[in-house]
Amino acid sequence: MTILENKPETTSKPDTAIFSHLESEVRSYSRGWPAVFDKASGSWLRSEDGKDYLDFFAGAGALNYGHNNPVLKSALVDYIMSDGVTHGLDMYTVAKRKLLETFESHVLAPRGLDYKVQFPGPTGTNAVEAALKLARKVTGRESIINFTNAFHGMTLGALSVTGNSMKRAGAGIPLVHATPMPFDNYFNGVTEDFQWFSRVLDDAGSGLNRPAAVIVETVQGEGGVNVARPEWLRALADLCKERDILLIVDDVQMGCGRTGPFFSFEIAGITPDIVTLSKSIGGYGMPLALTLFKRELDVWGPGEHNGTFRGNNPAFVTAAAALEHYWADDKLERDTLRKGERIRQTFMNLSDMFDGVSTRGRGLVQGLVFDKPEDADKVCALAFEEGLLAETSGPSDEVVKLLPPLTITDDELEFGLNILAEATAKVRS
Amino acid sequence: MTILENKPETTSKPDTAIFSHLESEVRSYSRGWPAVFDKASGSWLRSEDGKDYLDFFAGAGALNYGHNNPVLKSALVDYIMSDGVTHGLDMYTVAKRKLLETFESHVLAPRGLDYKVQFPGPTGTNAVEAALKLARKVTGRESIINFTNAFHGMTLGALSVTGNSMKRAGAGIPLVHATPMPFDNYFNGVTEDFQWFSRVLDDAGSGLNRPAAVIVETVQGEGGVNVARPEWLRALADLCKERDILLIVDDVQMGCGRTGPFFSFEIAGITPDIVTLSKSIGGYGMPLALTLFKRELDVWGPGEHNGTFRGNNPAFVTAAAALEHYWADDKLERDTLRKGERIRQTFMNLSDMFDGVSTRGRGLVQGLVFDKPEDADKVCALAFEEGLLAETSGPSDEVVKLLPPLTITDDELEFGLNILAEATAKVRS
Amino acid sequence: MTILENKPETTSKPDTAIFSHLESEVRSYSRGWPAVFDKASGSWLRSEDGKDYLDFFAGAGALNYGHNNPVLKSALVDYIMSDGVTHGLDMYTVAKRKLLETFESHVLAPRGLDYKVQFPGPTGTNAVEAALKLARKVTGRESIINFTNAFHGMTLGALSVTGNSMKRAGAGIPLVHATPMPFDNYFNGVTEDFQWFSRVLDDAGSGLNRPAAVIVETVQGEGGVNVARPEWLRALADLCKERDILLIVDDVQMGCGRTGPFFSFEIAGITPDIVTLSKSIGGYGMPLALTLFKRELDVWGPGEHNGTFRGNNPAFVTAAAALEHYWADDKLERDTLRKGERIRQTFMNLSDMFDGVSTRGRGLVQGLVFDKPEDADKVCALAFEEGLLAETSGPSDEVVKLLPPLTITDDELEFGLNILAEATAKVRS
Amino acid sequence: MTILENKPETTSKPDTAIFSHLESEVRSYSRGWPAVFDKASGSWLRSEDGKDYLDFFAGAGALNYGHNNPVLKSALVDYIMSDGVTHGLDMYTVAKRKLLETFESHVLAPRGLDYKVQFPGPTGTNAVEAALKLARKVTGRESIINFTNAFHGMTLGALSVTGNSMKRAGAGIPLVHATPMPFDNYFNGVTEDFQWFSRVLDDAGSGLNRPAAVIVETVQGEGGVNVARPEWLRALADLCKERDILLIVDDVQMGCGRTGPFFSFEIAGITPDIVTLSKSIGGYGMPLALTLFKRELDVWGPGEHNGTFRGNNPAFVTAAAALEHYWADDKLERDTLRKGERIRQTFMNLSDMFDGVSTRGRGLVQGLVFDKPEDADKVCALAFEEGLLAETSGPSDEVVKLLPPLTITDDELEFGLNILAEATAKVRS
Repeated sequence: MTILENKPETTSKPDTAIFSHLESEVRSYSRGWPAVFDKASGSWLRSEDGKDYLDFFAGAGALNYGHNNPVLKSALVDYIMSDGVTHGLDMYTVAKRKLLETFESHVLAPRGLDYKVQFPGPTGTNAVEAALKLARKVTGRESIINFTNAFHGMTLGALSVTGNSMKRAGAGIPLVHATPMPFDNYFNGVTEDFQWFSRVLDDAGSGLNRPAAVIVETVQGEGGVNVARPEWLRALADLCKERDILLIVDDVQMGCGRTGPFFSFEIAGITPDIVTLSKSIGGYGMPLALTLFKRELDVWGPGEHNGTFRGNNPAFVTAAAALEHYWADDKLERDTLRKGERIRQTFMNLSDMFDGVSTRGRGLVQGLVFDKPEDADKVCALAFEEGLLAETSGPSDEVVKLLPPLTITDDELEFGLNILAEATAKVRS
Repeated sequence: MTILENKPETTSKPDTAIFSHLESEVRSYSRGWPAVFDKASGSWLRSEDGKDYLDFFAGAGALNYGHNNPVLKSALVDYIMSDGVTHGLDMYTVAKRKLLETFESHVLAPRGLDYKVQFPGPTGTNAVEAALKLARKVTGRESIINFTNAFHGMTLGALSVTGNSMKRAGAGIPLVHATPMPFDNYFNGVTEDFQWFSRVLDDAGSGLNRPAAVIVETVQGEGGVNVARPEWLRALADLCKERDILLIVDDVQMGCGRTGPFFSFEIAGITPDIVTLSKSIGGYGMPLALTLFKRELDVWGPGEHNGTFRGNNPAFVTAAAALEHYWADDKLERDTLRKGERIRQTFMNLSDMFDGVSTRGRGLVQGLVFDKPEDADKVCALAFEEGLLAETSGPSDEVVKLLPPLTITDDELEFGLNILAEATAKVRS
Repeated sequence: MTILENKPETTSKPDTAIFSHLESEVRSYSRGWPAVFDKASGSWLRSEDGKDYLDFFAGAGALNYGHNNPVLKSALVDYIMSDGVTHGLDMYTVAKRKLLETFESHVLAPRGLDYKVQFPGPTGTNAVEAALKLARKVTGRESIINFTNAFHGMTLGALSVTGNSMKRAGAGIPLVHATPMPFDNYFNGVTEDFQWFSRVLDDAGSGLNRPAAVIVETVQGEGGVNVARPEWLRALADLCKERDILLIVDDVQMGCGRTGPFFSFEIAGITPDIVTLSKSIGGYGMPLALTLFKRELDVWGPGEHNGTFRGNNPAFVTAAAALEHYWADDKLERDTLRKGERIRQTFMNLSDMFDGVSTRGRGLVQGLVFDKPEDADKVCALAFEEGLLAETSGPSDEVVKLLPPLTITDDELEFGLNILAEATAKVRS
Repeated sequence: MTILENKPETTSKPDTAIFSHLESEVRSYSRGWPAVFDKASGSWLRSEDGKDYLDFFAGAGALNYGHNNPVLKSALVDYIMSDGVTHGLDMYTVAKRKLLETFESHVLAPRGLDYKVQFPGPTGTNAVEAALKLARKVTGRESIINFTNAFHGMTLGALSVTGNSMKRAGAGIPLVHATPMPFDNYFNGVTEDFQWFSRVLDDAGSGLNRPAAVIVETVQGEGGVNVARPEWLRALADLCKERDILLIVDDVQMGCGRTGPFFSFEIAGITPDIVTLSKSIGGYGMPLALTLFKRELDVWGPGEHNGTFRGNNPAFVTAAAALEHYWADDKLERDTLRKGERIRQTFMNLSDMFDGVSTRGRGLVQGLVFDKPEDADKVCALAFEEGLLAETSGPSDEVVKLLPPLTITDDELEFGLNILAEATAKVRS
């Protein structure tokens, strides 16, 4: 698919009867994008009626290398055709060895990181659950500090450190053992960083249960593209270190190059105690997750945390191929920053042109923020009509969040930004 | 691979340095089976040094149709080669429609089941978390009844209803909101079924928090191949219905034909309110899970439960292919029961021949139970040396648990049972 | 007051306007006994309109020595008149020293008990909260085992180990960290004692969180006069000891001689790790409570548990006087057993005479059990009309529970039993 | 006792053997004040060796009318001598009616308060537990907001909203369902009031569980004499009202005139939804507590919260006498403010004279704050030697907290302040 091919046709209403009949009301993306998708390639999705959609969403950040990336596809098909082990729990396999070696050589070693690697189950929420368990086991404490507008997952442990009140209510039990603290810039700079957090930690009468760990996203994607400054992250790391609290960076969405460097925390020069990775770590959009932690924290007993699909070997294969192809040098990182800057320019212009519009972001996660939340929704709806997929985020869905594939071409980027600019103009004029 | 090819060679020690160096101590299967697996086909795994292993484990029940099943492989590779959508969250896709239609036509409709289908994330523990959330939301109650030696998963919600004390301790917080009740035959038949459970439910002074739901496995795999009688399951269903408690059957391991019929609860003639499926539902060993529930329970709000890898489309493709190929008639079910009976005969003979050995099981989940737990471990270790993979289960790992692929040939079954019989003889003589 | 004085008059409706207007709907005893009481002496209460009521309730067991016992009254008034310290928190006072010395000489030493004494606050629920805290601190575990139909108090810790579902619902949060087990005879003897409890303790896969302690009443008063057999208590003590679980006997209602001996557990020859006392320990009906525990369990830090009214010195004075006067020999104990036997005879006769009536009890806590709960209520209502106070208990309020003062005279007892016998006859005929 | 009588003698070491032998290590006041007290009158305590101590502590605020106040003593002894009902649970009694009528006429009516009155058990922690239960029942929510350095009691519900980390650790379970917010002036005025609290309430993504209620002390006694400004209390009340959150004022220590008016919140002109009273409400230092709430919040079912010692009738008698004698006019209130001002003058002078000393307080709760916590301790120790009882408070015990009887004479006040001034001079010079 190419831009030229993207000729929206008059389309017939798609056949969605079976979805309405059989699939739970919990489905959500299909409500905003009521097409039935069939094929995908690079930055494009094609619906069954032949309409192409430029993808500024990238599987919620799980497709940093684009859809059906040919390099990874080739490795994947070869593996399947040769009867490589598909499903291996935590058995040793050749594919897993290859992934570990590549992760060591291309990710950990170059960054001087002495982490152990856990395969906690193939989803981000599994990686977070394992991180929280480990932090509690290491410290003997129960309480976790999370941040306003955090998103960490939907299973009970991860949900307890997630901010969204609708999703929290879904738990059906009171979510406890977590206390929210203000994320960077929560008060628009009028309040000293960590004023509240450091004070309640140091006040023996504050009533705060002493935390095992802090869990943080360096950029909050679901929370509305809230970007933590490097100095804030450094101060947070210092605060944790001084008080013997473990620092968990949840890099499920912002890792794997989304903000430029492989890990999103590299910009701050910090070394978290525990790191979670998922989404794009598999490379091809297949389920995979890792929990990384400092060597000395590896106090797990054998089998103390497990799960059937920890050994999703096809994803090991694509993961290793992606690391080898994209992380042997800094080209992807530089491209990401350059493209991110291109989006930022467009969004700055839109902010200048229209009242009630602002922007924030880092690398290839960029947000166009509308004072009136319904405007963000309208922009995304108009974009969809024009063949562009972009979603909203933030507590009131007030942010148009861009997560294009890192491999998007400049022309594709331009094409999509034009659609967004026109949609914004239409909505705000 | 075939039986004839299975010539164990003198093997060099496998290269596992990177695993020792980098992978967390939490790994477990690799400790009992210290081979590095490379290829897999049907009922066989081959290690990189060319040794073949007959697989009586089947990915902990995730490979009911065998490794790299050619029917599914063909569908999978075609899909990938044609750039079908790989990753789709809960967007509509052609592959998902196909799966829903096939699930309706081949599974639900023939059994008269009017369930809605939720894609809760691609693992069993996700399916359980969604089931528990929904039960709590529907009833407005928090408490769940689980059973002794239950296993439902490792995320906090699922772990709270899991029995194993080592795994529970891994939570690092007190696990609450669940109360265990005795599983069928917990007292070897000397105590009336549900004596305790029904009494505390009906006694307003018992101190039991009124439960939202009961979660049960019809056969407890991890718990030691504990088999609930159909009449016990019926009585449980009646008890739940009379007292307005939801019944959740966790069919993650026992569903998809493991015990014969597609759903393991069919033998009892009951219709659970909620059912979880995972492991073999994807067919090819790739992550997939479903939560099913009665239509009237679908009170989910859009997005109230979500997760990145809910739309693992390659697994939709293999799932649909498996349903079409294996569940259009009752051949697989009949074969499963026949082969299960074959195992049972062998195990009955072993029980007769050796003191301290007994057996239990249903369909193709069969357990050889040793009064001395260390014997079970020895049998599995001997079997591994002879090229057979089988794992132990039960609270003291006292049960050799057989979960062969449902597609295993009679000759392969014979071959494996001979190994087990010899190992048992060696251990118990 | 005496029996002869007890001439029920035609009474005008009492003035209860201020209660209706100002007191919360939570009030309960005043609903069944809508008199306004004014004076009290020995076994009698007199309402302001001059009607006398024989008291088979004794302040829910807080008035074992009767109302305004002259021996204690004299000590109390002397103390107040001489400006003895009234309120002392946990300061040393002469009155507290006297109480401790008397408790040592009259209670602990004669029974060979080497307990430390905590003043945890002046109510039973405070004593229970302190006991639970200490058990958790000593063991490092959170979970507590309680029994069906237990009653331990209304503050959140004590309420979590209480059985009554209406009272539990009042918590407004899910009550966790406690698991109920069947009290003695819960299955009418058809099931082996501790079958379920010992099994789940010993099964590493049962899902029961390992308990810090077991809390038990030897006779459940609120729960319906359920009497634990000595051999059951011994087996429970053994079970706890073997598994390193602390045994807490809540003797708030059954201690201070209610069942005969000072401690209700003496009959079983066991030594609990922790004991709670309240109600009649103060002797005169004024708030006082003690938590006793084995010397080696005294791991409290100074002030780790506190409370304003721990030092209710007037109650120390009456407590010491009661111990000196009533516990220097075994007269009270023998009288209690004799009078209890007298009640039991009457109740046995009633059980023989009327269908649907049975009896159980120990010492001077005796219950007349009605198969139809409304009958128990009717009997108490009739008794009230005839000038007798007795309350119902049990999960369905199906038991007429007798807790007369231990100091009741034989004539008074006879008088009251006649009223009950007539009421029972009227209700059951 | 009078000032002239206060001649400290050379004293022999008191006999405290039984305390050391028998009383739990949890005792605390006796450690700082190792005298054995015997008699008490007005503002004075006398130890058994005849030494008199001026009491600037007043039973932790439970003796606002002094020790053994003759007006109350007379009423109390008359009541006891006339065989008034001592112990009545929640039965109607003449003494309770009198208290309710007096409370209505002297407290509620003059202030235009339409509260219902609950007798929740005779201690402050009972009153708080009832308040929290009711707030949860009314709102259907679980979470409570408390404030930094709050103190509300030691039973599990009250402890969960208490700040002190040592006391919290004593729970032995994780304390949940409460989130602390900054008390007034927590950041020394540099941060806008309620910046954090109102922001997380209004942000649907903050992760804060929506609270049932806020519980607050207008002056935190145990927390270090932290005084909330009237405007802060008004803003808090507005914030609660706007967001449908119940406001609980815990007036256990600050009520009954301690800060001047009967209720400490009168200064702010607010009407809390729920109010707790204890300590001095009984007047004579005997256990009593009330929970007050707006009429429309009285959703209690009969017996839904109960407790044996709710009907401590002697305390009803002294409570009513105290209200009649002291709250018929505003003399006590004016005196309290005048005497409080007298202390404040002395403390201001000390603050001016010595570095590292400051002061805060309201009415007759006044604190002398030392930058070096050990200085506060030394001052209290020196004062004890000179015959003055005063305790420290605050998270580091850095505040000398004065809670003299409201009935203290000017000469006594002068006498005590001189001791404190000299002690401060000695310590800080």
